[in-house]
Amino acid sequence: MGNSTMDGARRAKIDSRLLATASVGTRNAALALAADALWDRRADIAAENEKDLKAAREAGLPDPIVKRLDFGEKKLADTIAGVREMIGLSDPLGRVLLKRELDADLLLTQVTCPIGVIGVIFESRPDALVQIASLCLKSGNCAILKGGSEAQASNRILFEIIHEAGIRAGLPQSFLTLLESRSEITELLSCHESVDLIIPRGSNEFVRYIMDHSEIPVMGHSDGICHVYVDKAADLEKAVSIIIDSKTQYVAACNTAETVLVHEAIAKAVIPKLQESLRGNNVRIHATKPVQDILAEARDGAGAGAGAPASNVRTAPASEDDFRTEYLDYIVSMKIVEDIDEAIFHINVFGSHHTDAIVTEDDEAAGRFFAGVDSAGVYRNCSTRFADGYRYGFGAEVGISTGKLHARGPVGLDGLVTYKYLLEGNGNIVADYAEGRRAFHFRDL
Amino acid sequence: MGNSTMDGARRAKIDSRLLATASVGTRNAALALAADALWDRRADIAAENEKDLKAAREAGLPDPIVKRLDFGEKKLADTIAGVREMIGLSDPLGRVLLKRELDADLLLTQVTCPIGVIGVIFESRPDALVQIASLCLKSGNCAILKGGSEAQASNRILFEIIHEAGIRAGLPQSFLTLLESRSEITELLSCHESVDLIIPRGSNEFVRYIMDHSEIPVMGHSDGICHVYVDKAADLEKAVSIIIDSKTQYVAACNTAETVLVHEAIAKAVIPKLQESLRGNNVRIHATKPVQDILAEARDGAGAGAGAPASNVRTAPASEDDFRTEYLDYIVSMKIVEDIDEAIFHINVFGSHHTDAIVTEDDEAAGRFFAGVDSAGVYRNCSTRFADGYRYGFGAEVGISTGKLHARGPVGLDGLVTYKYLLEGNGNIVADYAEGRRAFHFRDL
Repeated sequence: MGNSTMDGARRAKIDSRLLATASVGTRNAALALAADALWDRRADIAAENEKDLKAAREAGLPDPIVKRLDFGEKKLADTIAGVREMIGLSDPLGRVLLKRELDADLLLTQVTCPIGVIGVIFESRPDALVQIASLCLKSGNCAILKGGSEAQASNRILFEIIHEAGIRAGLPQSFLTLLESRSEITELLSCHESVDLIIPRGSNEFVRYIMDHSEIPVMGHSDGICHVYVDKAADLEKAVSIIIDSKTQYVAACNTAETVLVHEAIAKAVIPKLQESLRGNNVRIHATKPVQDILAEARDGAGAGAGAPASNVRTAPASEDDFRTEYLDYIVSMKIVEDIDEAIFHINVFGSHHTDAIVTEDDEAAGRFFAGVDSAGVYRNCSTRFADGYRYGFGAEVGISTGKLHARGPVGLDGLVTYKYLLEGNGNIVADYAEGRRAFHFRDL
Repeated sequence: MGNSTMDGARRAKIDSRLLATASVGTRNAALALAADALWDRRADIAAENEKDLKAAREAGLPDPIVKRLDFGEKKLADTIAGVREMIGLSDPLGRVLLKRELDADLLLTQVTCPIGVIGVIFESRPDALVQIASLCLKSGNCAILKGGSEAQASNRILFEIIHEAGIRAGLPQSFLTLLESRSEITELLSCHESVDLIIPRGSNEFVRYIMDHSEIPVMGHSDGICHVYVDKAADLEKAVSIIIDSKTQYVAACNTAETVLVHEAIAKAVIPKLQESLRGNNVRIHATKPVQDILAEARDGAGAGAGAPASNVRTAPASEDDFRTEYLDYIVSMKIVEDIDEAIFHINVFGSHHTDAIVTEDDEAAGRFFAGVDSAGVYRNCSTRFADGYRYGFGAEVGISTGKLHARGPVGLDGLVTYKYLLEGNGNIVADYAEGRRAFHFRDL
């Protein structure tokens, strides 16, 4: 779109009314045509994806990035299955949230409707483009997409296929728009008259930048500083297993645990075991002094002697900065707390309100943790890694929100709609009610 | 609080966890104690209110402002009745929005909880303080209140009474905080680490200023540019009555109509009648050229002659600026549109997404208007003045939101809560699901 990003956003705004009134049959038909076309054109997609892969290898990009770029036939088939699943999900639009008679001839209906125009900026995974486009289409929102530049050739063909399918189904031209240059992001951020919501995905710094540089509401999260708290009533085996999974199952994810808090009553029993398992999984501990003391004592008890070389121990001192750091690496900070209230306080102060877990067999402690922790996900006896739209059964997610307004946690179709109040009367005027000639009777239907 | 606004906000943040876990019994007890104490101390309240009234009269403030300040026994009794009604409303907290088994031993529950700390800045009506404090208390949110300085003495005693009642019921100290100086607003806007939401009420310029000067999410509205569209299938009598009510029932309200759009097929029939009624209600019309032509023709037909003096006509030309203006006065802009689509387009482009009405007997036209108009309230055959929390049966409102995220339209208790996802397992880890040893089965309970 080049300099015309704003014109494109204006066109999307105008077309958003047409998309909002497209029937669910039309929206599902567009998804079905897109699913078919994506499979029919798998050879073309593979060729374009190969261009991205070649460029990435030539540029010497790290292996994990190249791997994420790879959009082979298996991944394409999975992604198409996701689109077909979306067709089966019930329509998020037109749902009646409230139906209330204000008076005999005055009916109030609160009904869901699309947000309008949504800008989504996402990382270099070609499947992300398909998922996000499908979510926005199903929820009746015009989407303006900007994917990672490393996936440019893949994104372009995927966009073309989905766009063509939508047009064939009868959707308006600008139901989907693709931005290709980084400068267009800046332009997009200034389109507050046309764009209703920005959803940025990516690094903390990037998301923070977006949040700081736009008047448009932003939904998402920058940091993911998740905690596992081992309560005094914890089952030790569960604690170790949950911490290893929360930390290592996918170390670069936002729902990965960065800090372990341990109740002091159980610290001597759990910390040495934990260290052993973490060491076995190549995780380094940043430990507070009391944690270090317990580890030293355990080493002494095991006969290693106080003089055992630090390099074997794989621990480092923890500072307050550690508790504010999203390592995204094989590092975990560890701290002993006096009681569950200190754990809750620590999580609310140092955490990012994303997802935090307690390990406990005590129902009362779990209830206290559930009520006290101010996060989108509050877990008991399971891994923080479950915080994900797929794992919640949402079909797909556009992102995870750590904000408290609108949608919180993984955001699926329900988070992409708003509502309006429809009021139907028969010439009703407020003066009649204000002056006592008529009265409201409020009856929910 | 002076320089310590930020400290106060921090204390509120800490206390918000205690308030969030206070039972509905405790919260209702606080409301009941407040209601009793407000009545018991009506003489003290009257004395403090008299101070504000005296100062306002001495400062020569306009009559409508003095009238709004007046908090006589009748108003106090009505306000207390509102507090008692709040006690009867069902608890907005702890409502289960979703309960889903992800696996046999992994249960997901989406449950409502308070937002946390809410800053509300409101106009000089003493009853507003009581209503807002009650809404925040019932919904478990710590409230930081700043009322209009003209009501300072009244606000202070009302705050003290409600605060004392809350403390006696066992609520934490900072469940309610009162700010008294204007400089504290600026400090409040910078408390993004402690304050979760700002709700500003007042003039457009003031709300716009708040929205532009805080990183904290803001809920509310600046402009209220509401429309009445007279469709070609309108009942003329209803159209005139609805327009008069929408424009004049309370001319300074945000839900008052500022622009009338008329379908060209009905323009010659409706516009002269409308002008007559508007003139009878002292409303001046800012009219486009085609509207002026019809009025001139009607004058000629009535034998007034083309040379009738303009001062009698009470119309002025309408410019594009008119359509972007919230007059808050006895002025309405008027325009003829070719069809319903032009009306919808005009409303979406020039309106403020607040409340817009169609007058029509045609169900298809109404459906098209409902779907196409992108506003919090979309009405058929009734006055725009119905857009109000009380009239929707919400009990009370903290404000009206024209944003599309979180709450839209009049915001009552439901708009003051968010939710969290609770996940309860038995040691469940993601690796088991990722590696195929276990599988989700998603069953809604």
